[in-house]
Amino acid sequence: MSDVAGKPCILCCAITGSLPRKANNPAVPITVSEQVESSHAAVEAGASIIHAHVRNDDESPSSDPEKFARLKEGLEKHCPGVIVQFSTGGRSGAGKERGGMLPLRPDMASLSVGSNNFPTRVYENPPDLVDWLAGEMRTYEIVPEVEAFDLSHILQAIRLHGEGKLFGPLYVQFVMGVKNAMPADKTVFDFYVETMRTRAAEAQWCAAGIGATQITVNEWAIAAGGHTRA
Amino acid sequence: MSDVAGKPCILCCAITGSLPRKANNPAVPITVSEQVESSHAAVEAGASIIHAHVRNDDESPSSDPEKFARLKEGLEKHCPGVIVQFSTGGRSGAGKERGGMLPLRPDMASLSVGSNNFPTRVYENPPDLVDWLAGEMRTYEIVPEVEAFDLSHILQAIRLHGEGKLFGPLYVQFVMGVKNAMPADKTVFDFYVETMRTRAAEAQWCAAGIGATQITVNEWAIAAGGHTRA
Ligand SMILES: [Zn+2]
Ligand SMILES: [Zn+2]
Ligand SMILES: [Zn+2]
Ligand SMILES: [Zn+2]
Repeated sequence: MSDVAGKPCILCCAITGSLPRKANNPAVPITVSEQVESSHAAVEAGASIIHAHVRNDDESPSSDPEKFARLKEGLEKHCPGVIVQFSTGGRSGAGKERGGMLPLRPDMASLSVGSNNFPTRVYENPPDLVDWLAGEMRTYEIVPEVEAFDLSHILQAIRLHGEGKLFGPLYVQFVMGVKNAMPADKTVFDFYVETMRTRAAEAQWCAAGIGATQITVNEWAIAAGGHTRA
Repeated sequence: MSDVAGKPCILCCAITGSLPRKANNPAVPITVSEQVESSHAAVEAGASIIHAHVRNDDESPSSDPEKFARLKEGLEKHCPGVIVQFSTGGRSGAGKERGGMLPLRPDMASLSVGSNNFPTRVYENPPDLVDWLAGEMRTYEIVPEVEAFDLSHILQAIRLHGEGKLFGPLYVQFVMGVKNAMPADKTVFDFYVETMRTRAAEAQWCAAGIGATQITVNEWAIAAGGHTRA
């Protein structure tokens, strides 16, 4: 595609994620101050978006708005200008608890618009919760990053954006490589890109490969003119 | 496609479904004897597969194995040779209750291999339940009809079949037109067909459009050389 060359690529760094612990990788930042320093290093290495989860002191996933507030404060101080994106993913809590930090007005927040299987359970995003989270993001003027774990989630994102339910420009992330959801598959990736190009040409998209698929999906995304998460 | 002409098309009739009631359509068969007569008419009109749900006396969805047993008996008597397919869908019960009729050894049973949103809730098919239902179908030698509500479900079906987890030949149904899942979209339909053709050439596929999309999806399926459900 001739329009890829020269187009800036946005790098998003998921500093902590929801699952890995110090036992898996001693470098995983767990405390807010570790997260701020890790973000600082990511920004110096070229990241423009920090995708953030917070953790309890025992390293388990948290959705504590107070921790998110301290993280945002630290990021604004140490990484001025960085785009702060909070996760509203389902590993840190259930139902509206997942959006309890949105009144802090991060620049962006992740938003799942459908449900799918995860390795050992259902990732539940019932329609009324999706509506509520999208509504909170409109209220607090937060741009959603739609996490698309399957093809219908991309179509749903385009539909919701067309109906005015998603604040700001449409930004969709293809998530690939989660067991029991969409694998990291190049033919599917190409169809995802084509779906965005033909149905939402003004939108931006990025792609994330989970686990061992990360670098592969990064390369596909960059080559196709998208953005990517590491 | 030159291989479409002359290829037989299998018609499946979902006589009752899980939702419509007499108030919606007085012709919906609710009692077992109504279901047997409705199946008889469908078979005379050309149906080869009867896709069956059973109902309680108040018309609500049921998963009562005793009702399924009486239905199977009636179908074997009135519609000899018809392929009996029981639904293990999630509207009639939760968890293993959904497969309680599988020891009756119907020819086929529906099997969902992933989760997705429905109009007002999550259609939950957790991985351990999928494994258990597939295992019961192997035990009782029942051919699954995989209900694919999204693209990853098709890939998951191909993977499970390749691992020997699905009894018999692979049979996948594309379900389109359910609100908050995959819409009835021709570009997506074509990609589904191409996915089956390139990754599971020996398999059969069919397609079902829900509600107002039924006839449209029937026409797409027949024209593309697949099977279809009405
Ligand atoms: Zn995340
Ligand atoms: Zn610093
Ligand atoms: Zn059914
Ligand atoms: Zn009869």
